Amino acid sequence: MTFLQKLEGAWKDNNSLVCVGLDPDRARIPEHLSRNADVIFSFNREIIDATADLVCAYKPQFAFYAGQNALGSLKKTLTYLRDRYPNIPVILDAKRGDIGSTAVMYAREAFDQYKADAVTVNPYMGTDTLKPFLDDPDHGVVILCRTSNPGSGDFQDLTVQPSGRKLFEVVAEKAAKDWNYNGNVVLVAGATYPAELAAIRTIVGDMPLLVPGVGAQGGDVEAVLSHGLDSRGAGLIINSSRGILYAGRGSDFAQASREATVALRDEINRSRPAVHA
Amino acid sequence: MTFLQKLEGAWKDNNSLVCVGLDPDRARIPEHLSRNADVIFSFNREIIDATADLVCAYKPQFAFYAGQNALGSLKKTLTYLRDRYPNIPVILDAKRGDIGSTAVMYAREAFDQYKADAVTVNPYMGTDTLKPFLDDPDHGVVILCRTSNPGSGDFQDLTVQPSGRKLFEVVAEKAAKDWNYNGNVVLVAGATYPAELAAIRTIVGDMPLLVPGVGAQGGDVEAVLSHGLDSRGAGLIINSSRGILYAGRGSDFAQASREATVALRDEINRSRPAVHA
Repeated sequence: MTFLQKLEGAWKDNNSLVCVGLDPDRARIPEHLSRNADVIFSFNREIIDATADLVCAYKPQFAFYAGQNALGSLKKTLTYLRDRYPNIPVILDAKRGDIGSTAVMYAREAFDQYKADAVTVNPYMGTDTLKPFLDDPDHGVVILCRTSNPGSGDFQDLTVQPSGRKLFEVVAEKAAKDWNYNGNVVLVAGATYPAELAAIRTIVGDMPLLVPGVGAQGGDVEAVLSHGLDSRGAGLIINSSRGILYAGRGSDFAQASREATVALRDEINRSRPAVHA
Repeated sequence: MTFLQKLEGAWKDNNSLVCVGLDPDRARIPEHLSRNADVIFSFNREIIDATADLVCAYKPQFAFYAGQNALGSLKKTLTYLRDRYPNIPVILDAKRGDIGSTAVMYAREAFDQYKADAVTVNPYMGTDTLKPFLDDPDHGVVILCRTSNPGSGDFQDLTVQPSGRKLFEVVAEKAAKDWNYNGNVVLVAGATYPAELAAIRTIVGDMPLLVPGVGAQGGDVEAVLSHGLDSRGAGLIINSSRGILYAGRGSDFAQASREATVALRDEINRSRPAVHA
């Protein structure tokens, strides 16, 4: 199954646009889990088991594993997801980007080493650096376009001559016209900038969009939906990380995460057509 | 010692602007090393021992280790460099870039896990995503500006309103004016685009530039020097990876790498003032 087929299936089967970001921070993991041999994996597994019927994807953030000497926990998490929940796609959030011969190695990292279904990449270096990913029809290529952080406009919003388009719109145009020849492209459009999200949706038609920035970053769910849904009332992968992972801190933290995920799923579903119900 | 102090010292002590890119590809490592328990580390160690008196820096490329399940070899390589050659700075080429809370984790990866002296980062997401790196005066922040690959112009060369500057020039201006408050910023300027390298040098004054793209990528050394040297006849970290690593394939590969490094160092030194001789 390709990434897109998995995504379409999970959207429909779970009637959900919610993606849970697996960004485990040891300093915030509930105390009682500290007795486990692999604290981070134990935490992830409980979160996953509590939410797998409520989501369209999981998105582990590479940096949290790399920065905490826990890449083994990342690998175990992806193996667990693939074995236990093979119908939920996994997006490795690593924001890779490098010259062609190096990009091939990053594709091997994401798809051979971690067996992710998709990986996030950065477009700054240009089309040839994306090609090793774009050429692989089985895996999703999630390209940064208009990100959710406060400084995202520093470069992404610059107006480009002669078209008068903004840089992120130029990225979106390239994604729609030149890069999606295998139907595997997804763009990142932050929830915190709904007008820019709307501009991207207009440019790319029904291409799926990964939307970070609801929850801890403050993005408004209703604005995301009114500006970002595709023509079928889906097309979005709406990510929440901290808002779900740290919904509770006690021994019932997984139940609290489940409730936060249900709440987000329902808040989203109230504002979209019930096509997938 | 800060990254910049180490770099200044190595430029001077070794009278060299050469950086060796440690991008080991198992498929190209000499056959006779395959009996070693850690083939990649054994290869790196021989290359390092053969070149450490000839270089101003080493630049291991993260992707080659991540894609070949060899992050342990990367860690061993950095430990070896730090213990054996503490005066040669190490730039971890990982091209990281993410929102602030995640960038903090990437800084921990580069500086706590791998104990690199500097790391490469991607500016597309904006100033706040660079801040965790910029705020650390001890470590170098090597920011992509105008890269060496064929598609680097796709976005980096777009002309931006109202200044009429190109995107990479806007990045260079920000680096010089806003980002270098700790004197730890280096920009990437590909050897394959000497006119753009010259434009960057004009904007940033004597800021150090990391120049990939000589050797296998075809950049011309003389053009790099005539367009890129700083006011003291230094200021460049000129990287070669494949041209040095794979100069020989037999049991004397390390000697061949040494000779290739000497040749590049001397070619460079012939075209610059002998201030550091």
